[in-house]
Amino acid sequence: MSDPRLTALAASLPASVPFVGPEAQERSRKAPFAARLGANENVFGPSSRAIDALAKAASETWMYADPESYDLRQALAMHHKIPPANIMVGEGIDGLLGYLVRLFVAQGDAVVTSQGAYPTFNYHVAGYGGTLYQVPYYDDHENPAALLAAAHEHQAKLIYWANPDNPMGTWHDAKTVAKTIAALPDGCLLVLDEAYIDTAPEGTAPPLAPDTAQVIRMRTFSKAYGLAGARVGYAIGPEPLITAFNKVRNHFGMGRMAQAAALAALQDQAYLSQTIEKISTSRKRIVQIAEANDLACLPSATNFVAVDCGQDGDFARAVLAALLEAGIFVRMPFVAPQDRCIRVSCGPEAQMSLLAEALPRALKTARDAR
Amino acid sequence: MSDPRLTALAASLPASVPFVGPEAQERSRKAPFAARLGANENVFGPSSRAIDALAKAASETWMYADPESYDLRQALAMHHKIPPANIMVGEGIDGLLGYLVRLFVAQGDAVVTSQGAYPTFNYHVAGYGGTLYQVPYYDDHENPAALLAAAHEHQAKLIYWANPDNPMGTWHDAKTVAKTIAALPDGCLLVLDEAYIDTAPEGTAPPLAPDTAQVIRMRTFSKAYGLAGARVGYAIGPEPLITAFNKVRNHFGMGRMAQAAALAALQDQAYLSQTIEKISTSRKRIVQIAEANDLACLPSATNFVAVDCGQDGDFARAVLAALLEAGIFVRMPFVAPQDRCIRVSCGPEAQMSLLAEALPRALKTARDAR
Repeated sequence: MSDPRLTALAASLPASVPFVGPEAQERSRKAPFAARLGANENVFGPSSRAIDALAKAASETWMYADPESYDLRQALAMHHKIPPANIMVGEGIDGLLGYLVRLFVAQGDAVVTSQGAYPTFNYHVAGYGGTLYQVPYYDDHENPAALLAAAHEHQAKLIYWANPDNPMGTWHDAKTVAKTIAALPDGCLLVLDEAYIDTAPEGTAPPLAPDTAQVIRMRTFSKAYGLAGARVGYAIGPEPLITAFNKVRNHFGMGRMAQAAALAALQDQAYLSQTIEKISTSRKRIVQIAEANDLACLPSATNFVAVDCGQDGDFARAVLAALLEAGIFVRMPFVAPQDRCIRVSCGPEAQMSLLAEALPRALKTARDAR
Repeated sequence: MSDPRLTALAASLPASVPFVGPEAQERSRKAPFAARLGANENVFGPSSRAIDALAKAASETWMYADPESYDLRQALAMHHKIPPANIMVGEGIDGLLGYLVRLFVAQGDAVVTSQGAYPTFNYHVAGYGGTLYQVPYYDDHENPAALLAAAHEHQAKLIYWANPDNPMGTWHDAKTVAKTIAALPDGCLLVLDEAYIDTAPEGTAPPLAPDTAQVIRMRTFSKAYGLAGARVGYAIGPEPLITAFNKVRNHFGMGRMAQAAALAALQDQAYLSQTIEKISTSRKRIVQIAEANDLACLPSATNFVAVDCGQDGDFARAVLAALLEAGIFVRMPFVAPQDRCIRVSCGPEAQMSLLAEALPRALKTARDAR
């Protein structure tokens, strides 16, 4: 054999992409989207302080970033009132999930998640040869009791749970989260993905107790803070686990501008509050648009709303296709029965108007095709 | 056992850091460095077009970057006159090396490098459980014949070779590279790290032949292009290998501003030429400073110069410590006999003057301590 030799695991993996980017869709349709409401980005944008910090950092970009993200970790520690030793900063939650799975999952190790939950987590588990057990949603909510039961049954090393949930937008309260943590099987780590926690009602997140040995919590600057393109996420967990990231992470993987932008965004909590208010208004607007078309929405604690198209997955896929065709980028859940919905990110009124205009036609197209 | 369970491999790894950042050193000495000449960054900075592109992209940073880095890959393809399918863009060469090692190295797989070559590559190999075989430098150059011999002997999956070399700055010509490629053992991939190729003499890089099955070449925007803090590297290789990165990479790992900056920098080749000229002038200036102190320098094809302190590693370490103390950030090779040198990055005259002022005192301090 003359060709280089991939590992057996790598050879077995598909060259898959968890999500196709909207840019690829734009290239294929040969036109830009008029409204970008599909990736749960924050269309309201980041704080002007973050933008100023970016502009200022631009001239410093000849320097590698501090591999310890010291300033940002200090600021996060102060903000959350926890020690910096309990915080690891990384290249978005996606990057941190990759490192975490690498630390815990060897070939055949059991991991539990919900059927239809975050595909990028599943991608990482498959990428390290783990065996994924998926439990169904219950009433469009993730089902912590079922996650626990599956973890017990399969002696899972990890449970993945997004609260609030993506792609449905639903959530459980802090009491339920605390009860679930208390019932974790021995040797099992709960990966609590709180990407959307900033837009959730008070009482969704249990208080931070970073020394809890069996929980790691994931936070991000990509959603409410509006910095998806900067790639900054962070993990909060017990110190030994946080330190373990140093065994495998790309130490110089953080961008220098990314660190500066996140730091400035964190320091503008007034802007964050305004954004959360705008997102809340936009959620109501999406509900209004849906109801004007006789569609119901799921309750949402996130920066998006799952709009129930009222029929099956094929129908929702037809609605989605017609919206894309009309220049409205949205996405939808992958798995039945959640795939009866389309998922619409919040945004300013300009984008909402475009949606309001396009949705009735998209529904008509989908109905006519039945 | 109640605690979460790391994999056996992860548990065995040290929580090591390939390089301590200068920021950590600044925090520990409680003062910033006056001259930052230790990380082979480009102190001359990036093109103003890149800085403008960053400022412009700042307001778009609420969007995730295109996970395919389509525009940048197209531009690189045009620039290098090769198909975009032969190019993978990633989070710096460090990130790409991590993915590459993951694709090829399972526990116990053999990998060959030079003793004292890039520690971050070694870190990745250890991180995936590979067995690293290291061959000594020959006359302060990497030794391709020895790399080949070791690869044959150990049936290595990968050979790592930086040309020009870091940390010595020396290089081999394209003919030697081509000869080495022709002599690769079956099933062995040459990882040709060309991070410093832009500052090397004509005739150092063999022509790009991206379909050569057993070679992957690594390039970066961190060095001559002056964008270390943006984290943009790219790999050039045969299409099946480039596609394989999609099995494991963090698809949304690239920053949106990083892509924009790299694209703008690439499009300003005139600025790149000026920078290369400045680096060449600075190399001569470093030689002059060294010679004024009766020290010799190694020839360099990079944006740094290895200054031979003329004695052993302990002496060079004492010189380095005295320079750091004086506010001059430099680094040095890790392994004897190369560790008789200190490694000084190129920079504008302001930094060079500081070095010229500090070096005689640092040498005196080191000599007095003997």
